[in-house]
Amino acid sequence: MAADAVRGTMMERIGIEWLDIGLERVVARIPVEGNTQVYGQLHGGATAALCESVGSIGTAVATGLEKIVVGIQLSVNHLRAVTDGYITATGVPLRVGRTVAVWDFRVHDDEARLIASGTLTVAIRER
Amino acid sequence: MAADAVRGTMMERIGIEWLDIGLERVVARIPVEGNTQVYGQLHGGATAALCESVGSIGTAVATGLEKIVVGIQLSVNHLRAVTDGYITATGVPLRVGRTVAVWDFRVHDDEARLIASGTLTVAIRER
Amino acid sequence: MAADAVRGTMMERIGIEWLDIGLERVVARIPVEGNTQVYGQLHGGATAALCESVGSIGTAVATGLEKIVVGIQLSVNHLRAVTDGYITATGVPLRVGRTVAVWDFRVHDDEARLIASGTLTVAIRER
Amino acid sequence: MAADAVRGTMMERIGIEWLDIGLERVVARIPVEGNTQVYGQLHGGATAALCESVGSIGTAVATGLEKIVVGIQLSVNHLRAVTDGYITATGVPLRVGRTVAVWDFRVHDDEARLIASGTLTVAIRER
Repeated sequence: MAADAVRGTMMERIGIEWLDIGLERVVARIPVEGNTQVYGQLHGGATAALCESVGSIGTAVATGLEKIVVGIQLSVNHLRAVTDGYITATGVPLRVGRTVAVWDFRVHDDEARLIASGTLTVAIRER
Repeated sequence: MAADAVRGTMMERIGIEWLDIGLERVVARIPVEGNTQVYGQLHGGATAALCESVGSIGTAVATGLEKIVVGIQLSVNHLRAVTDGYITATGVPLRVGRTVAVWDFRVHDDEARLIASGTLTVAIRER
Repeated sequence: MAADAVRGTMMERIGIEWLDIGLERVVARIPVEGNTQVYGQLHGGATAALCESVGSIGTAVATGLEKIVVGIQLSVNHLRAVTDGYITATGVPLRVGRTVAVWDFRVHDDEARLIASGTLTVAIRER
Repeated sequence: MAADAVRGTMMERIGIEWLDIGLERVVARIPVEGNTQVYGQLHGGATAALCESVGSIGTAVATGLEKIVVGIQLSVNHLRAVTDGYITATGVPLRVGRTVAVWDFRVHDDEARLIASGTLTVAIRER
């Protein structure tokens, strides 16, 4: 992803690194540091923002630039606390239709433990 | 909220301002600027992080310092795009039990238009 | 709702009674009896089916017969056990757009206690 | 599952057949017929009730009879319409903790097409 496209965005703010962007899966990670709550553990909102980013970019890649993609519903289950290292979200499209896409997320820590799961529903509109 | 408690956290990062922290409701806002996606509109993950923060702090206030509160499930519906100003989340507890609390959120823009709704399920544990 | 339209449907099966069907809200109820789990308490799936019915019918009324409405995402929080009487869901549209509608539900027991909340995202398509 | 335990329940009503009940997965199916909406397609509430049943029974099996299990949050994404045959839900526990379990569901039709996904959060309490 071009650095200037993400400048000043939420994605820059949470420190997203894109590891794989493809039609069959999108993988990205963020550091726990700086994305914590007051206890020093990972803030659930950071996990949510990571998943929303992965599903949005994934749908945009699948549909092409002539469409606008808009996340309309996000559900996240937080399964395990994380205190350091990175969390990595792997997004897989469950469905990419003409007007709606649905993405499934599994989020792991650096020891490959499942720390969250999620689903994003995305609306696909004409530009 | 003491400034040093939020230093280096996700809440500082998205620029949360606390407008009301009480047992019956918690209200907080964030600026759209800096919390955008690549189109320049508000990033849904910022809305999610705002809601998660409001419900977590609200439950912590209700249960007291001897408990640990952990968001376990977040659902957000994004209803309307926002491009500038602030978004303000009002959280109301639907239930605060001994081990589980559930918060409902309504998020508005500066023209009082509803731009998102959400629900956070929080686990309450002994320290 | 005409009796023959619901014959042999899920809505007949759970015993839905329609109390109010309007553009601003839709209200319906089901008996707890027959909609229980093995403990004798209300089955959460009955609450879910009630909410999905209310939001689908509400969107169909709002959009008219020339459209097809399809529930695409349902989130329900179960807040309180119920063992007898009826549960009544009140659905309010948070947004009815051209291609997507979002409904909010509050479900109460006969003593007006809040027993569940929920949200349904509905896709609106051309027939 | 003993026939008399499910008599008069929601699970009997939607016609659940249990195909596999184990610690690592629980599989059950329902017929589309009788679980439809007014268009003659599968009612999303039936999918929701099937998932809620699978996750509840799965947690009860994992925790044993001395605990009470209560579904507290259900999220379902409906991905594809179904008009006949059966739908089969496969539930897998993402986490079974001391007080909370989380189940992931994939629901397929008779042609093995993914027609829905879902997640159930279950509270585990002392009897």
